[in-house]
Amino acid sequence: MHATSGNSVVLAVPAWIDEVVRGFRGALETDDERMAFTVALSKENVERGGGPFGATVFLGTQLVAAGVNLVLGTGLSIAHAEIIAMMRAQRALLDSPRSSGGRYSLVASTEPCCQCFGALVWSGIEHLTCGANTADAEAIGFDEGPKPAAWVEALEARGISVTQGVRRNEAKAVLADYVRRGGTIYGRPATTRSRT
Amino acid sequence: MHATSGNSVVLAVPAWIDEVVRGFRGALETDDERMAFTVALSKENVERGGGPFGATVFLGTQLVAAGVNLVLGTGLSIAHAEIIAMMRAQRALLDSPRSSGGRYSLVASTEPCCQCFGALVWSGIEHLTCGANTADAEAIGFDEGPKPAAWVEALEARGISVTQGVRRNEAKAVLADYVRRGGTIYGRPATTRSRT
Repeated sequence: MHATSGNSVVLAVPAWIDEVVRGFRGALETDDERMAFTVALSKENVERGGGPFGATVFLGTQLVAAGVNLVLGTGLSIAHAEIIAMMRAQRALLDSPRSSGGRYSLVASTEPCCQCFGALVWSGIEHLTCGANTADAEAIGFDEGPKPAAWVEALEARGISVTQGVRRNEAKAVLADYVRRGGTIYGRPATTRSRT
Repeated sequence: MHATSGNSVVLAVPAWIDEVVRGFRGALETDDERMAFTVALSKENVERGGGPFGATVFLGTQLVAAGVNLVLGTGLSIAHAEIIAMMRAQRALLDSPRSSGGRYSLVASTEPCCQCFGALVWSGIEHLTCGANTADAEAIGFDEGPKPAAWVEALEARGISVTQGVRRNEAKAVLADYVRRGGTIYGRPATTRSRT
């Protein structure tokens, strides 16, 4: 899942994720459809032994990139689903500059933690759609970290609109399933609980 | 500076950075010495056409990893100096688990932006040493983003102690030099100014 190649840090993304992206056809017209797709990724990641978080980047109705939580596999605390999706979207867009209409949205199966909140600010993303909320993640032992209290307003003040609670129960169910399977609630320090 | 290799996202770090790390001998006993070393990296990055930010990770007095700002070179908004240093430190420690005494410290030539603040929380770092401060970066047009107002206290509440203002004038001078050379003040959106 990870390697140091020469002078590089390599963030290896499982092949199944890219197959999903390559296999994507058509368009997902609504936040609701885009979230259903993203929650399905988080669910598949749990079934494959990963963390219960998924994220996608859409340009309008078109899928640009996808990510799942890879912290345990890579040993890198940066490797949250949202970060993977945003990095891959930026790479994809460098190779093929913006060509179709619509705005860039990040769809996150759970509201971003403090790290992904901060990264979002510099990412070029224009809209954030969230499934499960911060309290849902914290209720099962994950820690979202010290986000500003008014984090939604802080994003909106920077031109990033936010929609919360889309397919929340479905996204929550993936978190609950992860815990039921005995999944590690990872993070730092070991005595508290972590996140994505 | 960047590449997509198979299913991976590759964050290529310039060879000179790794040469500096490999060539490191001895120990830097104080925050002041560690900052002098880190500011020197930020200065060298500017001279090589990069952004005016450097960061290092030390285990006690020993250098573990180093990073400089690679946003412009990689096209990845995540590629701030602190993120590069923390990722490389985590990779180095996976290959060679903690063997010597001391705590992990991140030394940042400028106080972290909202992204690096958030990433620090999950990183395993136990101490943060800062050079130039947030106001210094903002005074020349960089944007540190929406950190919590009490960001230092938020880190300390999570067991990450913070020392501010170490060799601040030297670190500020690198920021000023970057602007004087006409360096891009990059970020998002284009109408505001960005950061690291």
